[in-house]
Amino acid sequence: MTVSEAIRRRRSIRRYQAGIVIPREEICQMLEAAMMAPSACNTRPWEFIVVEDKARREELAKVHPYCSFAPAASLVIVVCGLPERQEATGGWEFWPQDCGAAIENLLLEAYALGYGTCWCGVYPNPERVRALQELLGITSTPLAAVAVGAPAESPAARGFFDERKVRFL
Amino acid sequence: MTVSEAIRRRRSIRRYQAGIVIPREEICQMLEAAMMAPSACNTRPWEFIVVEDKARREELAKVHPYCSFAPAASLVIVVCGLPERQEATGGWEFWPQDCGAAIENLLLEAYALGYGTCWCGVYPNPERVRALQELLGITSTPLAAVAVGAPAESPAARGFFDERKVRFL
Repeated sequence: MTVSEAIRRRRSIRRYQAGIVIPREEICQMLEAAMMAPSACNTRPWEFIVVEDKARREELAKVHPYCSFAPAASLVIVVCGLPERQEATGGWEFWPQDCGAAIENLLLEAYALGYGTCWCGVYPNPERVRALQELLGITSTPLAAVAVGAPAESPAARGFFDERKVRFL
Repeated sequence: MTVSEAIRRRRSIRRYQAGIVIPREEICQMLEAAMMAPSACNTRPWEFIVVEDKARREELAKVHPYCSFAPAASLVIVVCGLPERQEATGGWEFWPQDCGAAIENLLLEAYALGYGTCWCGVYPNPERVRALQELLGITSTPLAAVAVGAPAESPAARGFFDERKVRFL
């Protein structure tokens, strides 16, 4: 799978095949891809909570309004920011954009491995942040919940080059 | 170039070959890749200012403390956020993370095309934001300045899977 193909073909997947277990090795490949993203001053301001436990995924679906498919997916990776790691940046909070880059790598790597994903936003919505911190027992800042599993739908590619969004100087 | 290779091999490039002109078609391929990133409620909260003009890249190097190589690169793509596009998200500002995902796609596509890139952070540093808005004559929010050009250095791959950043539940 070339990088251009993965970028252009990947779609968000909200329906998943039941009973698919993702091998630990593949999970780590996805997380490695995420960790290869560049970050401000190479601060790597992230951590990853891999929620395999179905009961917790059911709870997650209750506290996040757009993550009803969390129990049907094979697992959910909650990508969390570590703002305190960014002192080297002069205190500027680049971490949400750094985590965005890490998530995109995760999505692309998962796609190359044959899995579907859906990125569900958490931060900066304070209710979702608090709910996930409680559910997962963490003090870092949950930025997104990424469902991962074998797709049970195959939406056509979409997205396009919009020349109105470009200016040459 | 597979997606896994691009993700793992790409490095930030700060030295560029002089006199390399990037064809407009390739610039648009990179921008298309950026625009294929997922975004909150598919709001696509971004725009792109492609700075080919060398005089402006020299000015950019003066106002951004970590972008001294902007004039040596072939061009700089300033990725800007459009927060007002995110009303559909309930007003939550997901746009920095959305733009982070778009930038990662841009970096990977550029790498696959044989170009080097360096992501220079702008937002949320207010001085850099104001300076770039003035320099480019824009009202959107510059999030990053991405230098693009033919690499004149070839740093070895780095980055690694850090198991301390992962927890399984």
